[in-house]
Amino acid sequence: MSRWPERVTVYEVGPRDGLQNVPDTISTETKVRFVEALRGAGLPAVEVTSFVSPKWVPQLADGAEVFSSLKDTEGARLPVLVPNLKGLEAALTVGAREVAVFTAASEAFNQKNINASIAESIARFEPVAKKAQDEGLTLRGYVSTAFGCPYQGDVPEDDVVDTCDRLFQLGCAEVSVGDTIGVGDPGQVQSLCLALGVRFELERIALHLHDTPGRALANVVTALRCGVTTFDSSAGGLGGCPYAPGAAGNLATEDLVEMLHRLGVGTGVDLEALADASVALAEETGLPQPSRVLQAIRARRARES
Amino acid sequence: MSRWPERVTVYEVGPRDGLQNVPDTISTETKVRFVEALRGAGLPAVEVTSFVSPKWVPQLADGAEVFSSLKDTEGARLPVLVPNLKGLEAALTVGAREVAVFTAASEAFNQKNINASIAESIARFEPVAKKAQDEGLTLRGYVSTAFGCPYQGDVPEDDVVDTCDRLFQLGCAEVSVGDTIGVGDPGQVQSLCLALGVRFELERIALHLHDTPGRALANVVTALRCGVTTFDSSAGGLGGCPYAPGAAGNLATEDLVEMLHRLGVGTGVDLEALADASVALAEETGLPQPSRVLQAIRARRARES
Repeated sequence: MSRWPERVTVYEVGPRDGLQNVPDTISTETKVRFVEALRGAGLPAVEVTSFVSPKWVPQLADGAEVFSSLKDTEGARLPVLVPNLKGLEAALTVGAREVAVFTAASEAFNQKNINASIAESIARFEPVAKKAQDEGLTLRGYVSTAFGCPYQGDVPEDDVVDTCDRLFQLGCAEVSVGDTIGVGDPGQVQSLCLALGVRFELERIALHLHDTPGRALANVVTALRCGVTTFDSSAGGLGGCPYAPGAAGNLATEDLVEMLHRLGVGTGVDLEALADASVALAEETGLPQPSRVLQAIRARRARES
Repeated sequence: MSRWPERVTVYEVGPRDGLQNVPDTISTETKVRFVEALRGAGLPAVEVTSFVSPKWVPQLADGAEVFSSLKDTEGARLPVLVPNLKGLEAALTVGAREVAVFTAASEAFNQKNINASIAESIARFEPVAKKAQDEGLTLRGYVSTAFGCPYQGDVPEDDVVDTCDRLFQLGCAEVSVGDTIGVGDPGQVQSLCLALGVRFELERIALHLHDTPGRALANVVTALRCGVTTFDSSAGGLGGCPYAPGAAGNLATEDLVEMLHRLGVGTGVDLEALADASVALAEETGLPQPSRVLQAIRARRARES
């Protein structure tokens, strides 16, 4: 069997993807502390916030203030999500150097959410991508519903590959392929990674997995074998909890990092410092953190103290 | 990459391993209903109870009554755990046809728990194994702490292989290799499965995984690739919760079965009927059930009703 890679890039989405789905009561100071603590824990990329309309995501309405409060942003990977030119302008104003755009691989999902086909949604990003490149920004693309869609069910693998292709053609340096509803299994992951590997360098593909049915790490292991070396995750497992409180949404960064370290895969992340970041956020906000490794670390610390 | 196997045997341990660690208040009738519901859901092997001293495990003190209340036991795989000859006699009295014995791969664990070396603990099972064979029973062996020990830390792979070997020499038809404290990772699983595969037929090896750090299914996927086709699991994820309430101990049968079915691997288990068995138990006992798939099924049913 193949060896594990020497190094994996953990792309932290907690401050954006985690905090966009929670009650609208988290202070700007708490968000800034959270991002800085994650950076301090060695995470090589931390998605800070989203410059979408506060009408749609009031939780991140203070995105500009959060970003502007960060220290030593020069040269750091601190991407922000932008849905349109207005969002991009806001990102440029605060000095962001990496922006992410998003679409879905499911036609039904795009129609339902933004009343556009995949092609139309990509077309809307063209001016965004053009301006981002003119300004020398790094562009990341998100492809959601790549493993299944709440409206159309199965999503053809070709649609996922084509959507990635369009995003690369727009100038994306990296495309993150997302299991939005957490249905992907290792068989699908293997098949999709092989299909993506035929068309693209897998170094430019990230996987964005949800742990809903508890198999996010099974999917990671499978993707590692296929050659994927970038994974999105959320500190504490924050965000995207479609079911009961405490149920899992996003793959937890702690769970991902601990497994990678046990496999001998380097991440640059200090797991204890990462846990500190999550614990501090929980103490300030009371948000549920389904990460199993974080629960184990907290229990160990309670025993030791 | 290799294909997935066509079929996997799911060995259900919930009624024994799950219910041995809970408050001592579950009625015999509830236990019987639980076992029968699991059998009805198509589980090919259900470990019913343990004939250990009620001083040690008062939760299963009614094991004989539970077993005697089961219907149509002829030809069914309904193993019971026995620690010694007295337990075996009790198992024979109620008509059990499969019994399981247990030891640990860690010398420190054996010393601490039963004040015996591995060799001594195996020696104690010799008369049990002899009598079980004389009576025509099927014998299963458990090797705990195979991936790590709370007392000695690392457990040498050779000790695991040797302990399995001794249990096979005792006459065990199958040996279940357990990640008692839930520390195993896919690298360890791969290495250990390859080592076991050199010495034994992997058809005779089961893996007993805990989901503590959320990677039980990552370990299952890795073991499937290595050729293991029997996995122990516990309905609802019942039992072995060393941390916070709701934290995971045993790999949940629902999580295992759903992943296997998505991979096209047959189990004979009806997932909805399995969920019914877990839901009924939860309604009667209020026990926590960390299974993520079960939570998703419950949420879906709540939406639909």
